[in-house]
Amino acid sequence: MSASPLIEQLIQALKCLPGVGAKSAQRMAFNLLERNRDGALHLSRVLHDAMEHIRNCERCRTFTESTICHICDDPRRAESAQICIVESPQDVIAIEQTLQFKGRYFVLMGHLSPIDGIGPSELRLDVLQRRLEDEKIDEVILATNPTVEGEATAHYISQMCEKQGIAATRIAHGVPVGGELEYIDGNTLTHAFTGRRKF
Amino acid sequence: MSASPLIEQLIQALKCLPGVGAKSAQRMAFNLLERNRDGALHLSRVLHDAMEHIRNCERCRTFTESTICHICDDPRRAESAQICIVESPQDVIAIEQTLQFKGRYFVLMGHLSPIDGIGPSELRLDVLQRRLEDEKIDEVILATNPTVEGEATAHYISQMCEKQGIAATRIAHGVPVGGELEYIDGNTLTHAFTGRRKF
Ligand SMILES: [Zn+2]
Ligand SMILES: [Zn+2]
Repeated sequence: MSASPLIEQLIQALKCLPGVGAKSAQRMAFNLLERNRDGALHLSRVLHDAMEHIRNCERCRTFTESTICHICDDPRRAESAQICIVESPQDVIAIEQTLQFKGRYFVLMGHLSPIDGIGPSELRLDVLQRRLEDEKIDEVILATNPTVEGEATAHYISQMCEKQGIAATRIAHGVPVGGELEYIDGNTLTHAFTGRRKF
Repeated sequence: MSASPLIEQLIQALKCLPGVGAKSAQRMAFNLLERNRDGALHLSRVLHDAMEHIRNCERCRTFTESTICHICDDPRRAESAQICIVESPQDVIAIEQTLQFKGRYFVLMGHLSPIDGIGPSELRLDVLQRRLEDEKIDEVILATNPTVEGEATAHYISQMCEKQGIAATRIAHGVPVGGELEYIDGNTLTHAFTGRRKF
């Protein structure tokens, strides 16, 4: 060990960040110590608060520090009678940035993956089922990733919709097969929404 | 704003890390929330402790949570009667990893840069001066970066040594001009130490 025990601990702890290896962690640790202690103390506090207080929205399951997220809590978002199904909160951000979709979301926080023990109850499809029964919903837009698991998940949910007599559509053009929704530019996502077809 | 206020705060706060832009910060925030809340809480605590408790070693000025760092505190490191002058704590780590140097250090925490208002007192050369007067020192190895400022700083310190009748040497071969010490491999650094010449 060549740094002090506490600096070594800091370098190790920074490696919990995705994409940060030993060398970047060392660079980050010394950079913060040398140049930005206030920023680091602020990050420490916000990290703590976020990990302690951010839970899942009771309606759409996205991350929020409130019981109901700000999208679910906005009555104007119910007017379109549409629900968009996505795999992750980052997908919500990507779609919101297109400014094309005015409805609500349901965030699966994953996709069906029997081999990993992720079935309908892990994705809380019971919560979605109650929404299909209780809310006025004209269309469910399936915006899961165009991967094998994402397609299987979309198929499963389309069957839930069919039983409930609700139209299910799948986003289409422009999403490259095998790609991940959160990395796609807004223009492509807009086209994918416009070109959606009945599932 | 498309994420919750607390998630937005977290994404903004993560941008204090060097090399982390908006997109990486978003990826980090959601990755920690989804997969590693314990790691993030641990990072929060260690960040706080490190920023609050890490100060400069009273003898060599490197970062430490003790009054005297573990290298200055090791009596065997005084036996060689050598002091190596470096610009940053990362340089100490790089040199320690070569296992070639058995003496002590003095860490400038920068280099002379009159235009930025960094003179001898900012680099605490008064502390170095006292060590040159009080300790048994046969050789001062100047391992500042081979940049204009690093060379000027080495020159200034070599003059302090001369007045004190202490030999000053400059590390040599292998350090590419304009390069930064902390990014150089151990082998090159070993050669630079072996091939040092009188300043
Ligand atoms: Zn919600
Ligand atoms: Zn020390």
